Amino acid sequence: MKNFNYSIPTKIFFGRDQINVLGDQIKKYGSKVLLVYGGGSIKKSGLYEKVVDIFNKNNIIFWELPGVEPNPRITSVRKGAEICKQNHIDIILAVGGGSSIDCSKVIGAAACYDGEPWDLVIDPRKIKKVLPIASILTLAATGSEMDAGAVITNLETNQKLGTGHKDMAPKFSILDPTNTFTVPKSQTAAGTADIMSHIFEVYFNNTKGVYLQDRMAEALLKTCINYGSKAMENPEDYEARSNLMWASSLAINGLLTYGKETKWSVHPMEHELSAFYDITHGVGLAILTPHWMKYVLNDHTLNKFVEYGVNVWNIDENLDKYEIAHKSIEETKKFFISLGIPSTLREVGIEEESLEKMANQSTVRGSIGNFLPLDSKDILNIYKAAL
Amino acid sequence: MKNFNYSIPTKIFFGRDQINVLGDQIKKYGSKVLLVYGGGSIKKSGLYEKVVDIFNKNNIIFWELPGVEPNPRITSVRKGAEICKQNHIDIILAVGGGSSIDCSKVIGAAACYDGEPWDLVIDPRKIKKVLPIASILTLAATGSEMDAGAVITNLETNQKLGTGHKDMAPKFSILDPTNTFTVPKSQTAAGTADIMSHIFEVYFNNTKGVYLQDRMAEALLKTCINYGSKAMENPEDYEARSNLMWASSLAINGLLTYGKETKWSVHPMEHELSAFYDITHGVGLAILTPHWMKYVLNDHTLNKFVEYGVNVWNIDENLDKYEIAHKSIEETKKFFISLGIPSTLREVGIEEESLEKMANQSTVRGSIGNFLPLDSKDILNIYKAAL
Repeated sequence: MKNFNYSIPTKIFFGRDQINVLGDQIKKYGSKVLLVYGGGSIKKSGLYEKVVDIFNKNNIIFWELPGVEPNPRITSVRKGAEICKQNHIDIILAVGGGSSIDCSKVIGAAACYDGEPWDLVIDPRKIKKVLPIASILTLAATGSEMDAGAVITNLETNQKLGTGHKDMAPKFSILDPTNTFTVPKSQTAAGTADIMSHIFEVYFNNTKGVYLQDRMAEALLKTCINYGSKAMENPEDYEARSNLMWASSLAINGLLTYGKETKWSVHPMEHELSAFYDITHGVGLAILTPHWMKYVLNDHTLNKFVEYGVNVWNIDENLDKYEIAHKSIEETKKFFISLGIPSTLREVGIEEESLEKMANQSTVRGSIGNFLPLDSKDILNIYKAAL
Repeated sequence: MKNFNYSIPTKIFFGRDQINVLGDQIKKYGSKVLLVYGGGSIKKSGLYEKVVDIFNKNNIIFWELPGVEPNPRITSVRKGAEICKQNHIDIILAVGGGSSIDCSKVIGAAACYDGEPWDLVIDPRKIKKVLPIASILTLAATGSEMDAGAVITNLETNQKLGTGHKDMAPKFSILDPTNTFTVPKSQTAAGTADIMSHIFEVYFNNTKGVYLQDRMAEALLKTCINYGSKAMENPEDYEARSNLMWASSLAINGLLTYGKETKWSVHPMEHELSAFYDITHGVGLAILTPHWMKYVLNDHTLNKFVEYGVNVWNIDENLDKYEIAHKSIEETKKFFISLGIPSTLREVGIEEESLEKMANQSTVRGSIGNFLPLDSKDILNIYKAAL
């Protein structure tokens, strides 16, 4: 186990009607709010109206940035930062999924920065100050509600990059599972795949002596496997929605990473798919994951796959190790298919022509992953296998 | 899953040599420290000297409260509070296990209270303010390093009671597993039993829909089972010591409880044993736990024991449910015996004569537990079975 410093400052208000804390929590930071959200779903569900009601009752003035894209764009960040600067915004409230929250985080940093916001994505060290961020979560997926990272897309340069700063972690997040009752099946599936992928990124890892962290990771993986399809079959299954929602936060808030040396693999590979084709992030992850697993399986990584197969998928531990490993990968793929997620790149409109370009771009910051480091040639092979 | 508000404010500095952060962290709160510790073990190990060195280098003035008892007494709290009041102490640093930390927490509250410190144990609502608390942990057991509770013994009244306040949670705790290398075998065993008991208290529970929390609890139980005897066999096994140490904190920092309605059972029963006989807390817990399990096993609680047996002890899920349950209890008992912990009350000098008195006293605040609520008659039966 590696040394680590644990600090998870985000307060979580979890459960039905927790929106009731909103007024008091916001007023701790001021009275001028930038409200950030995506398409119209929060208006359809009535959540928008509830928020506005609370603002009015508490004399909170607000500005709006609607229309944040599913892969949030730097153009939205620029707009939001302008509003913050012009109106001396005190706190940014994202109402939505990871896209709105990620966008808000970088808006918060850009509002305190004099230069071009994209600088802060390319080089997180330039982030010195961030406006307070808060969120009301409506989609269990990215975990952005409880972590300090954000991913922003620049369509001008075909780049989708992660950035982060400790002060980007939301001051508080309201997690009411009923706010995810209206999430469509396909997004529920993609969200579940995203949560699982966050766990895989740190579970498939070489740090020794992290038994506790690995059992925790398996606990969360089993939660996703147990509830993913239940939430799809019965969108108002509170038990399923609440377990998935809490799993989304715990998967990425640091708990599974503390004590490990981590470097992600499948996310940076997927970011290129989304950057070039604007596909749903979780879908890209689900397509790539089994192929990534097959590619990195070797004599050195074998035992980790055996652990995964036995502990997560209950595969008979007396089988041959490679048989267990292959079965575990097969189960992973079958699970994503059972959620109705496409299993090939072609199904989501990605053809061979751009694979090489994407593979090259995914390694502009160097090789990816540390379970088995991958260069652009490796990534191209994985993309091809996933076609 | 129940509604919950998540907030775990304690910062953890985990790993080798993390004591290096001590000076900077203390100075965030002031320059006058009350140093609280137990017997001489921190002097033997050299830890005391390291702390004093850092204090001197950082111009930190300190007062000392040595000799805190294994079941910390209200008399020590009184002494500590007096020192704080007279010298305008800024922060209390506990160096030791749960006893020193618990004692420090109540000293911190008593230092801000004009009346008799025992009031604050009997009625936690009287706690309005607490001096900042910090800790350097030397024993993986109580989890006091990351929670907001404390247990204090009053030998004048033969009472051992829990109290708590959100501001009692340490501002920071330094968890260096090498500081537990010198913990004797018997204390390592008792500490492991204590961690497991904290988990049992919330795992054996009736709240519905808490799959995630239960899998997390199992992850931590497996960690204790995997490393308890390893740490005893090889006291300098860093992997074992670090996993146990981190498990001790996560078992009780709220993570396993959020979303559940919990009310403890075995701890309040054990507190009477320690209050009357001053025995090691973890030993009392290990003796009582299997008997408590047998006593509360019935048609309503059966499924939880099956879950426990299958998921934690790998008992064949195809067996008869009661067979699984009984086997799981047997495994629990065998595990504690394998750690060299006595398995009967008589072995630790407790005879039948005081059982009734203790059973009555354990329920002065009402019935205990909510998995199966127990009155004094039930508790007497469990004590008798454990004789």
